[in-house]
Parts: sequence; C-alpha cells; structure tokens
Amino acid sequence: MTDVLKPGATIGILGGGQLGRMLSVAASRLGFVTHIFEPGANPPAGHVADQVTMASYDDAAALQTFAQSVDVVTYEFENIPTAALDVIEAHCPIRPGREALRVSQDRLTEKGFLQDLGLQTAPYADIVTQSDLEAALETIGAPSILKTRRFGYDGKGQARLKSTEDAGSALADMAGAPSILEGFIEFSHEVSVIAARGITGEVSCYDPGENIHRDGILHTTTLPARLTGSQRMDAILLAGKILNALDYVGVMGVELFVTPKGLIVNEIAPRVHNSGHWTQNGCAVDQFEQHIRAIAGWPLGDGQRHSDIVMENLIGLDMDRLDDLIKQSDTAIHLYGKAETKPGRKMGHFNTIQRTS
Amino acid sequence: MTDVLKPGATIGILGGGQLGRMLSVAASRLGFVTHIFEPGANPPAGHVADQVTMASYDDAAALQTFAQSVDVVTYEFENIPTAALDVIEAHCPIRPGREALRVSQDRLTEKGFLQDLGLQTAPYADIVTQSDLEAALETIGAPSILKTRRFGYDGKGQARLKSTEDAGSALADMAGAPSILEGFIEFSHEVSVIAARGITGEVSCYDPGENIHRDGILHTTTLPARLTGSQRMDAILLAGKILNALDYVGVMGVELFVTPKGLIVNEIAPRVHNSGHWTQNGCAVDQFEQHIRAIAGWPLGDGQRHSDIVMENLIGLDMDRLDDLIKQSDTAIHLYGKAETKPGRKMGHFNTIQRTS
Repeated sequence: MTDVLKPGATIGILGGGQLGRMLSVAASRLGFVTHIFEPGANPPAGHVADQVTMASYDDAAALQTFAQSVDVVTYEFENIPTAALDVIEAHCPIRPGREALRVSQDRLTEKGFLQDLGLQTAPYADIVTQSDLEAALETIGAPSILKTRRFGYDGKGQARLKSTEDAGSALADMAGAPSILEGFIEFSHEVSVIAARGITGEVSCYDPGENIHRDGILHTTTLPARLTGSQRMDAILLAGKILNALDYVGVMGVELFVTPKGLIVNEIAPRVHNSGHWTQNGCAVDQFEQHIRAIAGWPLGDGQRHSDIVMENLIGLDMDRLDDLIKQSDTAIHLYGKAETKPGRKMGHFNTIQRTS
Repeated sequence: MTDVLKPGATIGILGGGQLGRMLSVAASRLGFVTHIFEPGANPPAGHVADQVTMASYDDAAALQTFAQSVDVVTYEFENIPTAALDVIEAHCPIRPGREALRVSQDRLTEKGFLQDLGLQTAPYADIVTQSDLEAALETIGAPSILKTRRFGYDGKGQARLKSTEDAGSALADMAGAPSILEGFIEFSHEVSVIAARGITGEVSCYDPGENIHRDGILHTTTLPARLTGSQRMDAILLAGKILNALDYVGVMGVELFVTPKGLIVNEIAPRVHNSGHWTQNGCAVDQFEQHIRAIAGWPLGDGQRHSDIVMENLIGLDMDRLDDLIKQSDTAIHLYGKAETKPGRKMGHFNTIQRTS
C-alpha cells in the first residue's frame, strides 16, 4: 500500500447516494474502479460502480471484507459510526481522516474547533437541560435556533425559537438528544467555498459560490458570488486554515455568512458538497474529481472557473420541470437515478452556463 | 414502448470499449441505466454500467435476452454482424437505424451514397481482382491507397501504393477481401463535424474540430479549426444533408478534407467519434450525452462551445506521461480503465482548455 494510487486501483466509498454516484463517475474518469458500501437497496451509485456491498454499518464482517477489497476508503456523508471507522482503518486508509469526522460529527465540537482557530461563528451554547436552555437564552436571546449536536442535515433535527417562550417545545423536539443553541446571525447572503487539500499539503479552492436555500435545502448556487476582492480572499484563506488545521485530505464544503463584521463560518462538511455541483460544468476538474485526486494522492487540479454559472437543485416534484429543462440552451442536467420521487428528496440538479453576450 | 424514454429506462449498448464506457456515464447523468453487450472479458464500460452481458455476436439467445431487457439499443462501433441486428430488432429499436449501418459498413457503398448526395469524395474504384486494380490505377494513379471494403479502422486493413509497382503486394495484403482503391487527395488539413439528429428530425452540429493523425490514429483535435466562415457553414450543411438522407437518429462523426476545391468527405462513422471527445470539456452537453438524448427521443442540446480546447489521445506508452499531465492546468484527463497498456492501444485522452489571456 502506497499513498499514491495508480489507475486500476479500487476506491471504496461509504454511501451510495448521489454524492457517491458522482464520485464513482469521477473515479472512473481517472481509471479507478469503485466499490460502494451502502445499507439501502438499489443505491444511485450502484448503477455506475464496479461493485456494491449492501450491508449495515454495524456489520463488522461486511465492513472488513469491503475494506480488504479496496485501496482507500472515502465517504459521501459525515455521520459514519465510529465503530465502523475502526474496523475499516485496520485494513486501509480513510481519507479525509478521522479528525475531520470527529470535529464535523458534532456541532459543539465543530464550533469550538473553529473558534480555537480564531474564526467567527454564531454565538452558541451547549444544551442538555431546560435550565441550560433558559440560561443560554439570556445571553444569546431569540430568535435563535436549537439543533441536535449530531446527525442533522438539510434542516432536520432543528427547531427555531421565535421568542424565549418557545424554549419548552423546542427542547421537546430534540427528543432528549444533546443539543446546541445557536444565535441568529444578521447576514446579507451565504457563500460557500469548496476547498481541497492534497496529500502533500497543497490547497486549492474553487471560486466561492453564492447559495440560496428554500425550506432548509439548498436551492441555487450562483457563480460568481457577490463578494469584494478582499472578502473572496478572506473566504479562501479561512478555508485553507481549516483544512491545514485538520491535516485534511480531500474536498471540504465551508459555508459562510457574509456580514458587515466579516465572514462567519456556518458549518463545514468533510466531503464533496451540494454547493460545489456547479464545478461539473464550470471547471476542467470538478469537485468530485478533485476529491478523488486528493484521496488517491494525485496532485490537485487548479480549479480555475471558465464560465459564469448557476446550479439549481431538482427537489421532489421539480422533476416535472424536466421536459422544459432539457430544451434549455447551455444547460447540463444531472439526474441521480432515484427510483421514486418524494417531496424534499434531491432528484438531480442542473447547471446553466451564463452568456453575457 | 414509446419513442421517448423516461429517466429510469434502460439503454443497451453494443460494445464495451471506451466509447461504450463514456456513453454509459452520459446515460447515467440523464437518469438512465445501461446494459452493455460485449464479447470480451472485463470491458472498460462494465465498470460504470448497471449490467454486462458477455457473449458473442453470433449467440442469438444471449442477444435476445439482452434485447428484451432494454428499451433501446445503440452501439459504439459500426461493424456489427447483420444477423445480430436482426435478432435485436425483433425486440427493440436500434438507433441509429439499420440504413446508417448498411451504408457505413462498406466503404464502396458509403462512397456511392455520398456521391449520390452530390458530395465530393476521393476518386475510388471497386477492386476484386488484380486486373481490376491495374485498370483502376490507370485512372486513379499512384500514390493511392487500397482498403478492405469492410471491417477496417485506425489504419487497419489498408495498404499504400507509392507507385503502380506496389499493386501486387497491396492486393496480397487484403487477403482476398473485397477492396476499394482510393486516390490520394491533396488537402491542407482534416476537420471533422460531430453532428447529431434527433428523433423529430432536428439537427445540431458541434463546431468542427481540426484533426492531426499519427501512424493512422487520431493524435489531436483542436478547436477552433482553421476554417473560413463559409467553409465552416459548408461543413455543417453537408453533415446535415448526410444525417437527413439516412433519417438518422444519434451522433455521427463526419471526417472532411479541406482542399482548394472545397470540402471532400473522407468517411462517416455512425456513432460518437474520437474527434468529438473535446466536447466533454468544451460544451454543456457533450457528444455522448447528445447521442443518448437523441436515441432516447429527447430534444438535443444546443452544442454551443464555451472554450477553445485541444484534445489529445493517450496511445500505448503515452500513459507514461500521466504523472506530468495530471499536474497541468486546465487539463481534464479521461482514462478508459483498460487493464493492459499495449502499443497503439487507446488508453485515454485529455482535454486542455486554452486561455488566451
């Protein structure tokens, strides 16, 4: 086992959703084969992978066989049980590494990590009991938002407190899970940096994109984002700081609030990120290939953007728009091969290259 | 069975080489699944396909089962035995259709078809015997080139005649196969048009690329090609004429010689084409997706080029250049996942976006 993989090597991917699917395609482009590990039946990534293991994350035997069949393991989501990681790491490297997962699996740990780096976050407090919450509300105030420390995504496991009177019901929504209260931030807009770090420590960031959310789910990412030159530089420097602090290998999504007091880190995701899907049609090397390059020990692509571009997600019944979208100029469709359309489910996305002439 | 496929439908692909592989990836992007039919073991397309049938083209039972499992059949090469097509067509449509295959499988038929359309070709003659060849050499002269009528590709099944004295050895090289003598054309350069026609008859052409060959194999394709505005228009119009005459559905490669007397058609290929690989990094919809859109009955992408670009093939030991290439800015690598590197074997290609600033 060397750090640098040659074409023909096998990349193991934990998770067979759309991110695993697009990672698998990118891996194939570099001559790698992929092996997907996924508990659910008929995973989107399975249609474009060499091999699929359908098993649970607590099936140590399946995890071991999987880990022995691949040269490196990566993942499409951060909430992988620690015990599963222990089994895998006995047989092959996990990239990005354990520290990135430890930090990002827990909102409280993540906020502390970011503050220790001297970066700005929303004000926050650790919440276990009702009295914790009441005390926190005195300093953080309302409106604010209560979130489970672990296993939240796309607005799940969150309760908004419009006033301090919502404290009781919000804590009940957490169902006893350790939580964190976050103060609301006054921000003009949200941007994200898709940043990559290679195995030898080089960092490459894509141009930050500007994100708009709907119902707690990413709706569009627009390039270029509305940022001054110094804001853009700040965004890239702070992303590099995070990656270096974690000795990170791979692609990370860093969500930032743009405020008059500077950039505030909303959250980090130790993986390819929905707000980086525009790179598929805006750059020679997209975020998926960039991630594969990093975890394979290859040099990073330079990430230069060749076009202005807008990415839009296709959520649930947005799929009804497909007949119109496929007629649209300069638009690249990316569907995830999900058998069933459900409200709130990410079914695909499309990238539209913007022509100004 | 309708003409228009919905995401989730299955596309059958005859041939599991690099073209089948890239077609399979493009199909997945539009939410289709793919089933590859390929006689050889461990085909490149198999790593990114949902299903692979490994069987011979004379295995009628395997062809039938394959055809019954898919919604449409397409192909990555034109030399498919007629009997195999008969078996498939009893169960599902073949796109592009049989007429395109009939014409392009035989160089003599193809030349006649092109001349009947009023297009220019090299002077040619049907050659069976030594006396045919001698007679033809009197009008066509030398240098000229003797080619088998069927089953040639990448310079295989060809013999150059530097003088009329080479007639005997050249005919011996054909090993008794029906052949065609083609006169040499004085041309300044070669271009190709990657043209697509949809199921409702609309035609969309990519900007012509300029090709350079080495040892009979495509070396580079450069965009834009050196063409005047009227040459570019001629190229596109004649490609459209060919596609319409064949009631064609899918992508076709049309190779053209640029001469002082106008454009001369070298050959046509009823499939995605090596000289169209640049579209992967130069357009929102590449030739592979364009082909899948056409055979799925979807509207075509508009094929607008967003960047100047150079495609270069990685043949055999060119793979030794990989370590350098992956460090190169604005370069997208595409490897085919072939287990063994052999001289003359197409192992991959790379597209480099050209920046003029």
